Amino acid sequence: MELTTQHKETLDRAVRAIHERTFFARYPEHPSPKIYGETADQEGREWFQDRVGKNFSELLQAADAGWVGDEQSPYLQEPLNIKYPVVSAAAYVANACEVFDTWRQLPVLNRAALLIESLERMKARFFQIAYATMHTTGQGYMMAFQASGPHAADRALEAIAMGYEEQARFPGEVVWDKPMGKFNLTLKKTWRTMPKGIGLVVGCSTFPTWNSVPGMYASLVTGNPVIVKPHPGSVLPMAILVAELQKVLQENNLNPLVVQLAVDTHDKLITKELAEDPAVKLIDYTGGSAFGDYLEGLPGKVVFTEKTGVNSAIIDSTDEVDKMVGNLAFSIALYSGQMCTAPQNIFIPADGINTPGGKVSFDELATKFVAQFNGLIDNPKAGPFVLGAVQNPATCDRVKDAENLPGQVLLPSRSIENPMFKNARIATPALIAVEAHQIDIFSQELFGPVAFLIKTKDTAESVALARKLAAGHGAISCAAYTLDEDMKDYIADQMALAATPVAFNFKTGIYVNQHAGFSDFHVTGGNPAGNASFTNPEYVIKRFTWVGTREPVS
Amino acid sequence: MELTTQHKETLDRAVRAIHERTFFARYPEHPSPKIYGETADQEGREWFQDRVGKNFSELLQAADAGWVGDEQSPYLQEPLNIKYPVVSAAAYVANACEVFDTWRQLPVLNRAALLIESLERMKARFFQIAYATMHTTGQGYMMAFQASGPHAADRALEAIAMGYEEQARFPGEVVWDKPMGKFNLTLKKTWRTMPKGIGLVVGCSTFPTWNSVPGMYASLVTGNPVIVKPHPGSVLPMAILVAELQKVLQENNLNPLVVQLAVDTHDKLITKELAEDPAVKLIDYTGGSAFGDYLEGLPGKVVFTEKTGVNSAIIDSTDEVDKMVGNLAFSIALYSGQMCTAPQNIFIPADGINTPGGKVSFDELATKFVAQFNGLIDNPKAGPFVLGAVQNPATCDRVKDAENLPGQVLLPSRSIENPMFKNARIATPALIAVEAHQIDIFSQELFGPVAFLIKTKDTAESVALARKLAAGHGAISCAAYTLDEDMKDYIADQMALAATPVAFNFKTGIYVNQHAGFSDFHVTGGNPAGNASFTNPEYVIKRFTWVGTREPVS
Repeated sequence: MELTTQHKETLDRAVRAIHERTFFARYPEHPSPKIYGETADQEGREWFQDRVGKNFSELLQAADAGWVGDEQSPYLQEPLNIKYPVVSAAAYVANACEVFDTWRQLPVLNRAALLIESLERMKARFFQIAYATMHTTGQGYMMAFQASGPHAADRALEAIAMGYEEQARFPGEVVWDKPMGKFNLTLKKTWRTMPKGIGLVVGCSTFPTWNSVPGMYASLVTGNPVIVKPHPGSVLPMAILVAELQKVLQENNLNPLVVQLAVDTHDKLITKELAEDPAVKLIDYTGGSAFGDYLEGLPGKVVFTEKTGVNSAIIDSTDEVDKMVGNLAFSIALYSGQMCTAPQNIFIPADGINTPGGKVSFDELATKFVAQFNGLIDNPKAGPFVLGAVQNPATCDRVKDAENLPGQVLLPSRSIENPMFKNARIATPALIAVEAHQIDIFSQELFGPVAFLIKTKDTAESVALARKLAAGHGAISCAAYTLDEDMKDYIADQMALAATPVAFNFKTGIYVNQHAGFSDFHVTGGNPAGNASFTNPEYVIKRFTWVGTREPVS
Repeated sequence: MELTTQHKETLDRAVRAIHERTFFARYPEHPSPKIYGETADQEGREWFQDRVGKNFSELLQAADAGWVGDEQSPYLQEPLNIKYPVVSAAAYVANACEVFDTWRQLPVLNRAALLIESLERMKARFFQIAYATMHTTGQGYMMAFQASGPHAADRALEAIAMGYEEQARFPGEVVWDKPMGKFNLTLKKTWRTMPKGIGLVVGCSTFPTWNSVPGMYASLVTGNPVIVKPHPGSVLPMAILVAELQKVLQENNLNPLVVQLAVDTHDKLITKELAEDPAVKLIDYTGGSAFGDYLEGLPGKVVFTEKTGVNSAIIDSTDEVDKMVGNLAFSIALYSGQMCTAPQNIFIPADGINTPGGKVSFDELATKFVAQFNGLIDNPKAGPFVLGAVQNPATCDRVKDAENLPGQVLLPSRSIENPMFKNARIATPALIAVEAHQIDIFSQELFGPVAFLIKTKDTAESVALARKLAAGHGAISCAAYTLDEDMKDYIADQMALAATPVAFNFKTGIYVNQHAGFSDFHVTGGNPAGNASFTNPEYVIKRFTWVGTREPVS
């Protein structure tokens, strides 16, 4: 296959990157005209605007059950009225079963090449995907471009590379020659990797491609046909990608239904019907813990989840108080706290933190946080674009409810004007001070722009609470600030016991929210925030089975 | 550590062997005086005889709850009256939690070296372990020596090597340097592997060490302290091994309770109490499906199981009918069908099988099977030693019940005399002919010496039934005989879809029951016979979590 030759180098480079874990990116993250073309941005925006109110006709799949769509723009607060073709849940599964043998029998390298080709095609549509993401998730433009485009494509390539490597881990055939004394016993042995069955990928409304492509590509490269079930609130970004892959398959004389998009609507969800189908053996899920726990409990399935968690920031000491506070405030404000990696609980000792200029008190820090938030929010060139819009109206309600909790509201949430979208759904971060003993308030994830400053006895108590919450309720990130090397080791070890990665002393240019493909494992799989990790070996190994044969050599 | 240097070469060789999958064995499988010493056998037998009726005092653990033991010899049909020290289930867990930090903080290489040292010590006790195994499981002498001694030690080394390699898979520390246009963003990143918690290893009564050591050593090398809960019917083999490892730990100034033996008795089993303890995160289990399913369903645990299955033999054609029948008859008779890999269902087309000399009919094959069984059983130099004794009286009842099923008993089970053990519990294989439509009879595992000759329409139906049973009820092995290359590919593919390895055309010197360490994956993990595999990467990866840290480089 021509594609194989073409993409083998990309694949090899990606495999290397996984092991080196130094910086690597296949797809440039900046929406620069120099890289992507002078007219790419405008064409992408116009393409998106032209899709509104129409049937999305690119998918190579039937519409036996009609056309549906439920998306709304958080920036416009009005329906997009884009409709997608649908068939019954049983029909998606039947289609996937039909293509199962062809897809699994393709050599791994060919599967990998076809999948990489779909990412190369995706690259040409990053701007379309960016606008589709903005107007379904509420993400700001830059994040929508990066997260749904190049970063997602890199995560997909990472999953392909890991899956490729694992399937090449053991030899396809060996001669096994055992000395038996007077003679040798000689066997020809072979090994093959067998896919588990049909894969189901259940997307979320905030990161429709970034959180879906690792599971989709991991299942596909290991030979499992995939049904992508996007969140009804954000379909278009994945529709573009699925359509591109279907076209690649068709052009290569394969049945495009190796991957299918199964769209549903809020009033008639089909995830359970798909997930419980006996032919569906693999499930990838991003979303709330209740539904994730239900999926994890389904018998006979291998389930990969990213659920909810409560992320902590532990402040012990710093040499640059304002940069630290600015960094954390930005991390919380970015996409209005709707990132799974956003900090929620900021632990500060009651007697303040050490700095080269002496102690900075809890109240001084609180004042600095309020100032940093206001400075960011009220900067018309930054605030609206960093905050983006709120995907789900329920998030705004949650923020208001949080302000009624028995804490001290240091900064209430409010709305600001987005100069480009007057009707955007906006909620700035609420900052609330509480005491360590008020753990019931901050021990659950309050998804959205809510952060707590939590007054602890000392850093040891801060660490103990952060570890306890991560172990009991899950955590995907932890920010920590300390100048003390022993304390640094202690924090790293204690949070590792709760399977939580720690970002130390981030001040400028990098935020705890960011997890880089080919280097940072996203979610560890070791605490209740999720049982899977982008992309460790377990993430691909569990999608196939090693099976051997033996035969005497005559 | 001195041990590290000493055992690093063994470890490296084992890692290579895992990848090469050609023949490798660290521990010689033949109980040869030249290898193990002229007096080793006799000393081992005498050592065992001297243990009978006494307290086993080698374990470095407390006896707060007294001394207990329930073992009986299937050869003597009388209690061994060997007693082991016990504490409460809660105390085992508390002990394990106490040593958790020390064990996990030891470098992986040091853990591996200590564990390999325990295997080297085990080697000096292979004969003791052999007699302990014979007189608790009923295995014949040769199997007891090989399976519980060198083969088990090789499987343990394999698990250590796989665990070592996986924990060295990603770098401990890198500098991550990302070009940001005008500047580079430079982070120091570290990764560490964190054990999941306390490991529980639940043994079975037929292969007390072989089935227990992979899980035990896999959990230990990945940093998890282990509680070994042997089957009350076969304790002594693992007691020897646990005692040796405890001594190695103590000699190296480590708490010996990193590994504990938790003995119980049939009237007061403690497995559930141990398994449900929140600190127990890893469970390895070999045994019946009902209890295995219960363990797999426990929330918050990572569970590795080998449960029950129904193994098939598919006969399509052969160039040496008698050798084929002899091979299968031996496989069924070996240890009286008490191997998880023993064939149960032999599928034969109604119009017979092709051979170079023409068709051989179903009835002719049936006659040959009966003759081969009788020839083996009635050979006083082979029969008693191949059959061994029956571990559990319930197995004898099961065999008798099978003869009352609506099939044609071609050969009833009977007892024969073992010249060395007049009182041995012996049951020769029952051979029963049934039709393919009587699937209810042969679709469950009838553990023990029972085999069915099943008359099918043709080989295609044989394959379909074998696949269906493996997928629905589990299978660990499949024997197939065919001279047709297309049929061979078809069988391999179809059985691989049910995650079952196929042994083709075994005639002399090798039996389908045998799975070699460092080469054959034992159990694939892909069908109901078990969710784990000795030893694939998944078997060790799931026992720890990768956790990272990041910090800007100034």
